[in-house]
Amino acid sequence: MRRQGWAQRTRDIQAFHVMSVLARAKTLEAQGHDVIHMEIGEPDFSTPAPIVRAGQAALASGQTGYTPALGLPALREAIAGLYAQRYGVDLDPARVVVTPGGSAALLLITSLLVDPGQSMLMADPSYPCNRNFLRLLGAHAKMIPTGPDSAYQLTPELVVQHWDASCSAVLAASPSNPTGTVLSREQLQNLATSVESLNGHLVVDEIYHGLTYDCRATSVLEVAPDAFVLNSFSKYFGMTGWRLGWLIAPEAAIPELEKLAQNLYICAPHMAQVAALAAFGEETMAICEERRQAFHSRRDFLLPALRDLGFAIPVTPEGAFYLYADIQKHSADSTSFCQQLLESEYLAVTPGLDFGHYRQHEHVRFAYTASLDRLAMAVDRLDRRLR
Amino acid sequence: MRRQGWAQRTRDIQAFHVMSVLARAKTLEAQGHDVIHMEIGEPDFSTPAPIVRAGQAALASGQTGYTPALGLPALREAIAGLYAQRYGVDLDPARVVVTPGGSAALLLITSLLVDPGQSMLMADPSYPCNRNFLRLLGAHAKMIPTGPDSAYQLTPELVVQHWDASCSAVLAASPSNPTGTVLSREQLQNLATSVESLNGHLVVDEIYHGLTYDCRATSVLEVAPDAFVLNSFSKYFGMTGWRLGWLIAPEAAIPELEKLAQNLYICAPHMAQVAALAAFGEETMAICEERRQAFHSRRDFLLPALRDLGFAIPVTPEGAFYLYADIQKHSADSTSFCQQLLESEYLAVTPGLDFGHYRQHEHVRFAYTASLDRLAMAVDRLDRRLR
Repeated sequence: MRRQGWAQRTRDIQAFHVMSVLARAKTLEAQGHDVIHMEIGEPDFSTPAPIVRAGQAALASGQTGYTPALGLPALREAIAGLYAQRYGVDLDPARVVVTPGGSAALLLITSLLVDPGQSMLMADPSYPCNRNFLRLLGAHAKMIPTGPDSAYQLTPELVVQHWDASCSAVLAASPSNPTGTVLSREQLQNLATSVESLNGHLVVDEIYHGLTYDCRATSVLEVAPDAFVLNSFSKYFGMTGWRLGWLIAPEAAIPELEKLAQNLYICAPHMAQVAALAAFGEETMAICEERRQAFHSRRDFLLPALRDLGFAIPVTPEGAFYLYADIQKHSADSTSFCQQLLESEYLAVTPGLDFGHYRQHEHVRFAYTASLDRLAMAVDRLDRRLR
Repeated sequence: MRRQGWAQRTRDIQAFHVMSVLARAKTLEAQGHDVIHMEIGEPDFSTPAPIVRAGQAALASGQTGYTPALGLPALREAIAGLYAQRYGVDLDPARVVVTPGGSAALLLITSLLVDPGQSMLMADPSYPCNRNFLRLLGAHAKMIPTGPDSAYQLTPELVVQHWDASCSAVLAASPSNPTGTVLSREQLQNLATSVESLNGHLVVDEIYHGLTYDCRATSVLEVAPDAFVLNSFSKYFGMTGWRLGWLIAPEAAIPELEKLAQNLYICAPHMAQVAALAAFGEETMAICEERRQAFHSRRDFLLPALRDLGFAIPVTPEGAFYLYADIQKHSADSTSFCQQLLESEYLAVTPGLDFGHYRQHEHVRFAYTASLDRLAMAVDRLDRRLR
């Protein structure tokens, strides 16, 4: 007799394709090839020194036990302080939930807002895990095809058009992964108004805040105090491997989120929380600003270079570190296009498949998480390949 | 119009009662009272120095980025080595999944094994989160009342008796939280045989392995190579706040678990993984053995002292750091009993309510996570209260 199989959800939840690209890239590197990595959504800068020192000091002073499920009070206060400083928003620290990575913030928010059979509206393309957290819970993502005309973002019109009885919330991302586009204050306001008129919850992924170029990112809390906000120390503060994020929620949701946090992960890593207290100091902020400028220069180099090579990037991305390129001039199959780039040019890029269904075969995502020199080499290799 | 409410599951998932006890205990401490903490499931020893140093070195060398979802290969090998050394089990490192805490291992295993509407059999009393992970997924825990006659453990007879079409797996814990009882090799073998005959999966929580007294804990892998094992660096290795655990799974489950890990948490904290490499060295093992002996002495002091005070602890706990006591001689309501102990004697103990439904009002859990001196004070306070 055969054992029972795995749960149904395992059939629907896909591996990240970017991970296969990365695995193959590492094999090629082990064979001596010089691979340029533009696949992974991870800054190529390590954690700023003041944060590292604070982490080491936390360990030295024995801060190795559990913390409260909602996070260290001092860190919740510091995060609230960031909202005052960056956005002019007066935020009660009691509304800040410190989480083990943005991933856990997504786990909390989907667990809080979505019953089995329900759905969340989101743009297609978007971050792959979003839809898989919903699948985990027996719910689903309603992926709304978006293109250049709405800067790959949801609009009030799209929300109203696609909202149905199954919907409980709308998930937007600004800056967006994979497209790097940013929602203006007015767009956020209109989105919030439309979601409120539908009696739904609005969740905004602000994980790439801080990394914006020639624009200022508005937090949804500036225009909709009752929205949910996902954020993380991973990207702007360069703390990917520490696993630390946060969630801002309406006051009434906090006791529910506390119960969920206690049960689902107990607490975020203690030493990471202490280390993150050094994230908002002047020294760290100066380092992060310098890095932001580096990303800015890279975008300014790579965007026109890719356009010159025939990649269509119709909306100028103003944030994150991604360029989402239409490859139709070169190929109708982004997965094999990425494979060939890797095998022949040792250039690792993520196929559109990771980000949804809508026109995914015609798109790839370039991450500019490599130095200008390396990006110039990448452009040369693309030129050689596509010439 | 009111916004949509929270998801149904938030009504069924309970806060840990121990957390309310802890919160009240901290308030009393802030008022100047000397509270003896016997409520929380956390060792009172901080992380051993060699692990702390390894964590600091990891930070110094910039090991702050993502790791592979299944964990650092070196750590997976080291964990496999522990099975050879401790249990004589030859374990392929590819079957080891490094997780952000035992919590994430539970999230993975329930996500892998249980569809909505299905159930897992487990003992009542047991660790509170188990049933809440199942509720998260639209599944449920079938809690089997267990008492002293089976040492609060599931038996093959109980499993066969309660197994129905909804069941996909059995979850046992050895040593158990809250009862500290240990399953013998023969009991594990019989349990495995019975679960296999029912075509189910067997999962054993071995999180308190290493902390056993006058007995050796058998790993289920010694007798059932296809079982799933949950474990953690939190308890024996004193790493609660680092959030690091592991899961051993059959080879066929690994690709599924990898997908789930990528999507649900990306990876366990990088520096914790590097630090844990120092857990298996001689110096750390000597520190952990010394601590085990301290827990042993505490159990040997507290167990007869509580029995003398009229608490019924019919089965001698051989592991973990808990005594699960029947308080019927003193009270029929463990929650108010714990409240009164805290308010009048400043002694914090966890009411049975956290661990299930069966006779929970007649039980409390004492954690001997305080020094012998403090435990003696606790016994004095109990004596004063109950005299």
